[in-house]
Amino acid sequence: MNDARTWLTLARVPGLHAGRLAVGHDPGGLASESRAALSALGLPEAAIAALRNPDPEGLARDERWLAGPNRRLVTWGAADYPPLLAAIADPPLVLFVEGDAGALSLPQLAIVGSRNPTPLGRDTAEQFARHLAGAGLAITSGLALGIDGAGHRGALQAGGRTIAVLGCGLDVVYPREHEALAREVAASGALVSEMPTGTAPLRQHFPRRNRIISGLAVGTLVVEAALQSGSLITARLAGEQGREVFAIPGSIHNPMARGCHRLIRQGAKLVETADDIFAELGALLDGLRVGTRAEATDAQEVSAPALDKDYEILLDALGFAPAGIDTLVARTGFAADEVASMLLILELDGRVAQQPGGLFCRRLTGK
Amino acid sequence: MNDARTWLTLARVPGLHAGRLAVGHDPGGLASESRAALSALGLPEAAIAALRNPDPEGLARDERWLAGPNRRLVTWGAADYPPLLAAIADPPLVLFVEGDAGALSLPQLAIVGSRNPTPLGRDTAEQFARHLAGAGLAITSGLALGIDGAGHRGALQAGGRTIAVLGCGLDVVYPREHEALAREVAASGALVSEMPTGTAPLRQHFPRRNRIISGLAVGTLVVEAALQSGSLITARLAGEQGREVFAIPGSIHNPMARGCHRLIRQGAKLVETADDIFAELGALLDGLRVGTRAEATDAQEVSAPALDKDYEILLDALGFAPAGIDTLVARTGFAADEVASMLLILELDGRVAQQPGGLFCRRLTGK
Repeated sequence: MNDARTWLTLARVPGLHAGRLAVGHDPGGLASESRAALSALGLPEAAIAALRNPDPEGLARDERWLAGPNRRLVTWGAADYPPLLAAIADPPLVLFVEGDAGALSLPQLAIVGSRNPTPLGRDTAEQFARHLAGAGLAITSGLALGIDGAGHRGALQAGGRTIAVLGCGLDVVYPREHEALAREVAASGALVSEMPTGTAPLRQHFPRRNRIISGLAVGTLVVEAALQSGSLITARLAGEQGREVFAIPGSIHNPMARGCHRLIRQGAKLVETADDIFAELGALLDGLRVGTRAEATDAQEVSAPALDKDYEILLDALGFAPAGIDTLVARTGFAADEVASMLLILELDGRVAQQPGGLFCRRLTGK
Repeated sequence: MNDARTWLTLARVPGLHAGRLAVGHDPGGLASESRAALSALGLPEAAIAALRNPDPEGLARDERWLAGPNRRLVTWGAADYPPLLAAIADPPLVLFVEGDAGALSLPQLAIVGSRNPTPLGRDTAEQFARHLAGAGLAITSGLALGIDGAGHRGALQAGGRTIAVLGCGLDVVYPREHEALAREVAASGALVSEMPTGTAPLRQHFPRRNRIISGLAVGTLVVEAALQSGSLITARLAGEQGREVFAIPGSIHNPMARGCHRLIRQGAKLVETADDIFAELGALLDGLRVGTRAEATDAQEVSAPALDKDYEILLDALGFAPAGIDTLVARTGFAADEVASMLLILELDGRVAQQPGGLFCRRLTGK
């Protein structure tokens, strides 16, 4: 099924997502299925109506948008559909993309948070994004004011890739203050939405948008968030999707730290430095490698930070004879979980190999 | 065995603690036991020598100190030996006490942290101590500069009880800057040491001192601590002793928050308000009630904060028919673990009773 109009029609069916379809069920044939069959998919009456009687004006608007430069649809089942997003329970059938659709399949970290952060929180988001994007992770966020914008900007400053997922049609610029930023994001990575053109940025769209932010990414970092912040929804969705959740703590006197503290209490990883994120992602990307080989290769490249002093100490302690974690703990004085994390990073980096019996040995060459 | 000189002799035996004695083994007879029997207890040569040939000058100095006002020994096996301290692996045989020895058996929270806190960290320690001591918990610390002193001061400001455990003899005032504070602590609660008089505040004494701070308390709160801080040792000991560890997060740009962040990563409870501590201690004091009835009564009094709005919402949701946690979650919108914590507090407070099948019901009268 390669008919853009068919996909555009599907994009305009409320509540329809790939999770409603059985494996192998061709979404292109949905419009010609019986009312009973569509009801059995859980589609409400309004959705069935939208499927059978598409809105010609809406479709024409979508097609006009699509004719513009660097615009395309990324569709369910296509080779360029981002694999991590495909793994969530309710993947969009269609993504409207402006920019480089290939960026959607890069290893990404989502950075989200308050629309009204403290100046230090904004700086922190920008610094983390700069550092992480500089090391090769794409930074995904929602183009909102505050932390979102700082995340995109940090990635751009590093010359890295960044992806903005919108809760409105891509022809609706929201927020207006970020119009120029949206242009830069499209040039660096991609602007993405599952909402057809003309869709207004209504409050109820944002949780759906947030599942795409968390679903594209291997993990979500919350920088500053009040207890009512929508970024806590993104974090919850990330957790439900089996992705890592990271949160940056703050002073107990800073109300913008409350949401992060709640997340940490609920099991989010407390993050002080960008390297803390790499330490966790080492294990996570390692797990993902099983399913998606191409992505794992990227992940290996991404998660190899320049060797800092602790890693050098660990490699020195390892020497060139196999040793277990307990031995390395005794030799270095580092905690066992620190040693384990560092070994994973070093393994991904090609500097260490694991042997049977839980022993690790050094490799003479990195990759 | 009521002979003070015998106990003072035991206090001067390096490495001797109650953990070396079998249940029912009378420490008063140790001096007359054979060298082989003493070796079998794991006592090194120097300890055996100190036991058989006590230092007369040291004992005389101890006795002179003991003759002063409000001074006494609290000894292993005596009715006033603090029960929580008795439960650790290596309880002191003898405690030198100036002040109210009975204070040692009160429910206590240890507050420890950096000797060089930020001004805000110092304020935070003082505020938490004031709030917790005002609600009836005694505050235990080490009389050090910085967070320790702020903890003692906060308790004193609230008219509460505070206990200082020293790493030197009680006739050695350390640190000098806290001489006046030490007088106030002795008047409010107690100054305590297991070290005989004349013992200098050597660095190697502090881990031993710290096990008493954590061992007296139901939990240890770390307010600000660098990664090398001795208060992390106290926190580790608290964990090993099965006590709760609490840590206050801070900005990632504050080096004094690093130690707390490490503790949180390792499983310490992240604390934003004093009520967070009561919420956790509810369960903990409930557990302790099994073993120590008198203390549990105090604990009930302590852990009953004035009802805030959330508790009122929960009680309203509970009504007067038994309901389970899931039902209460659905009625209130609170998280399940919040509801569980609040129910424990309300149970301790006599406002709620648990019934078979995990159901809770409201009681018509508080205690």
